[in-house]
Amino acid sequence: MAGETTITVVGNLTDDPELRFTPSGAAVAKFRIASTPRYLDRESGEWRDGEPLFLSCNIWRDPAENVAESLQRGARVIVQGRLRQRSYETTEGEKRTVYELEVDEVGPSLRYARAKVMRMTRTAEPGKAGAASAPRGGSADDPWSVPASAARKTAAVGAAADDEPPF
Amino acid sequence: MAGETTITVVGNLTDDPELRFTPSGAAVAKFRIASTPRYLDRESGEWRDGEPLFLSCNIWRDPAENVAESLQRGARVIVQGRLRQRSYETTEGEKRTVYELEVDEVGPSLRYARAKVMRMTRTAEPGKAGAASAPRGGSADDPWSVPASAARKTAAVGAAADDEPPF
Amino acid sequence: MAGETTITVVGNLTDDPELRFTPSGAAVAKFRIASTPRYLDRESGEWRDGEPLFLSCNIWRDPAENVAESLQRGARVIVQGRLRQRSYETTEGEKRTVYELEVDEVGPSLRYARAKVMRMTRTAEPGKAGAASAPRGGSADDPWSVPASAARKTAAVGAAADDEPPF
Amino acid sequence: MAGETTITVVGNLTDDPELRFTPSGAAVAKFRIASTPRYLDRESGEWRDGEPLFLSCNIWRDPAENVAESLQRGARVIVQGRLRQRSYETTEGEKRTVYELEVDEVGPSLRYARAKVMRMTRTAEPGKAGAASAPRGGSADDPWSVPASAARKTAAVGAAADDEPPF
Repeated sequence: MAGETTITVVGNLTDDPELRFTPSGAAVAKFRIASTPRYLDRESGEWRDGEPLFLSCNIWRDPAENVAESLQRGARVIVQGRLRQRSYETTEGEKRTVYELEVDEVGPSLRYARAKVMRMTRTAEPGKAGAASAPRGGSADDPWSVPASAARKTAAVGAAADDEPPF
Repeated sequence: MAGETTITVVGNLTDDPELRFTPSGAAVAKFRIASTPRYLDRESGEWRDGEPLFLSCNIWRDPAENVAESLQRGARVIVQGRLRQRSYETTEGEKRTVYELEVDEVGPSLRYARAKVMRMTRTAEPGKAGAASAPRGGSADDPWSVPASAARKTAAVGAAADDEPPF
Repeated sequence: MAGETTITVVGNLTDDPELRFTPSGAAVAKFRIASTPRYLDRESGEWRDGEPLFLSCNIWRDPAENVAESLQRGARVIVQGRLRQRSYETTEGEKRTVYELEVDEVGPSLRYARAKVMRMTRTAEPGKAGAASAPRGGSADDPWSVPASAARKTAAVGAAADDEPPF
Repeated sequence: MAGETTITVVGNLTDDPELRFTPSGAAVAKFRIASTPRYLDRESGEWRDGEPLFLSCNIWRDPAENVAESLQRGARVIVQGRLRQRSYETTEGEKRTVYELEVDEVGPSLRYARAKVMRMTRTAEPGKAGAASAPRGGSADDPWSVPASAARKTAAVGAAADDEPPF
C-alpha cells in the first residue's frame, strides 16, 4: 500500500489488550491508548494535562501475541501505524465512522519503565510478519465477536479455514 | 503544548475552505481532506485506490486567510498538524466524538501542480502567528455558526471583543 | 520499499532549486532546506532561534520540474520524504556519509505566503509519478555533473538512452 | 522548543548502549541504530534488504538509565526524537557535520520479541524527565570522554557541580 497516513502515538493502554483469533487461526490483538498532552500554565508556571486523544489499535499475527503477553492496562507505549477510517451501521441503521490505527510497530516506553526483552523465534519469514501481511481493505465480519478459545478450536477443526483474517 | 500527536497528511480538499471570524476578529479556516492510499493489485498488476481517510482541519489567523485565498476544492495539499479529539452532544443528547487536525503548516503539493508564491508581510510577530497562538483546550462555541461578514462586523463594532477565538 | 524512515521537514530553501536531466531525459531537482527551531528564552520571555537543521533534498520527474518552476531561494516549504544515507569517497580517498531526503511531496507553506496553484496535465499515470518510480539503491554517477541543456540533448539524441535515472 | 523536526525510526542497536554521567551527575545514554528498509525484487518475487540508515541517538536522565538496563546490541527498537545537526572540527581542523537524534521516547519493538515491563518510581516530576529537560543548543564538551564511574564520583564529590549537562 502506498500513500497511507502513518502516525506515531505515545500513550497509555486504557485496558489490557484483547487477543482474538480469526476462523483460520490468525491472531489479532486490539488495544486502546490514551495520549495526553501537557501544557505550561503561564500563571502558575506548572504543567497541566490537556485533552487526551484516544485511539483504537489493531495488530496482527505473531506481534499480536507478543503484545498480549507483554502489555497491561496502564502501560506507556510507543505505537507506529497507519491511520484508517472505518464506517459501519449501528443496529438502528445509523452510519458511524471510527478512526483506528493499523499497527506496524509497538513497544513499551522506557521513559518510566525498564524491560526485560526476550527475542522470539520467528514462525514466519520477515516479509509475512508485518505490515505486508495486514489485510487490505475492510470486511463485514467482526473478529471481536468470536471468543479466542472458540476461534482457536474452529481454526484447528475447520477444514476450509481461510488464511486471511476476516476484516 | 508538549506531547501532542503530530501527523502529516497528504490529500485533496473535498470542498473549498470555509473562512470565519471569531467575535474578536480572529480568522479561522476549516477544510476537509481526503487521503486515498493506493495498493498494487497483484492479479492485474495495476494500482488501485484503497479506502480514503477523511480529516477535518482547522487553521487560525493569517494562515487561515492565506488558505482561503490559495486553495480550492480538489487541490492536493500537504498538511502538518496535531491530531485532536473533540466530544459533543447531538441535539438528541447523544455523545459523539470527532477527530480533527489542528493545522500548523499547509501548502499545495507540487506533485501534479505548479504554484506562483506571493510572500505576505507579516501582521504579527512569528511567535504569534503559528502553533503557539492556537487556543488551548476546547470551547462550547461554534465559530462556524457565524457567517464571516457578520463576524467581521461584530468584531469591528463589539466593544468587549475577546481576543481569544471561541473554540 | 517497506520500512523506510519517513520524515516531514518545514524549512526555507537555502538556494534556488537546481534542475538536471539524466542521460535518458528524466528530470531531477535538488534543493537544500534549513529548518530553524525556536525556543522560549525564559529570562527575556522572547522566542529565539535555535540551531538550524540543513537537509539536501532530491525530487524526480514531473514534480522536479514543478519545483524548479515554483520555488525560489528563501521560500518556506513543507517537505515529506524518506531519510537516506549515502556514502562516498572524497578525492583524497576519505569515506564520507551524507544524509539526504528522497522527496515524495513538497509544497510552499501558506503560513506567511499565498499561492496561485496551476494544475498540470499528467504526463504519466499516477503510479509512475511518485515514490514508486524513485530509483532503488544508489549509483556511482552524479547527475549534478551534467548541465541540464547537455543532458536534454543527450536524451534526445542518444539511441540507447536508459529510462532509469543513473543514481 | 517549537518547530523542531521530529522523526520516528525503527531499527536495531548496532552496539550495547553506552551510559555516561555529566560532571553534575546527570545520566546520558548514547546508542546507534541501523534501520534497514526492504524492497520487493520483482524478478525473484522476494524481499531484499535496501541500504541501511544509521543514526546516533542520545537520551537523558532516568530514561537513559532505563535504556542502559533494558537494551542490548541487536535489539529492535522504536525511537521517537528530534533530528539535530552538530558541527565540529576534527583534530586536523576540518569541519564535519553529524546528524543525531535527541530521543524523547524509545522502547523495544514487540514485532519479534516479548517484554517483561517493570515500572520505575519516578525520581523527578514528569515535566522534568523528558523533552523539556533536554539541553538547549550545543556545547563544546564531550561527555563520552568521561567514564561513568569517574563522573559519578565527580558528581558526588564536586562542590560546584553544574545541574545542566555539558553538551
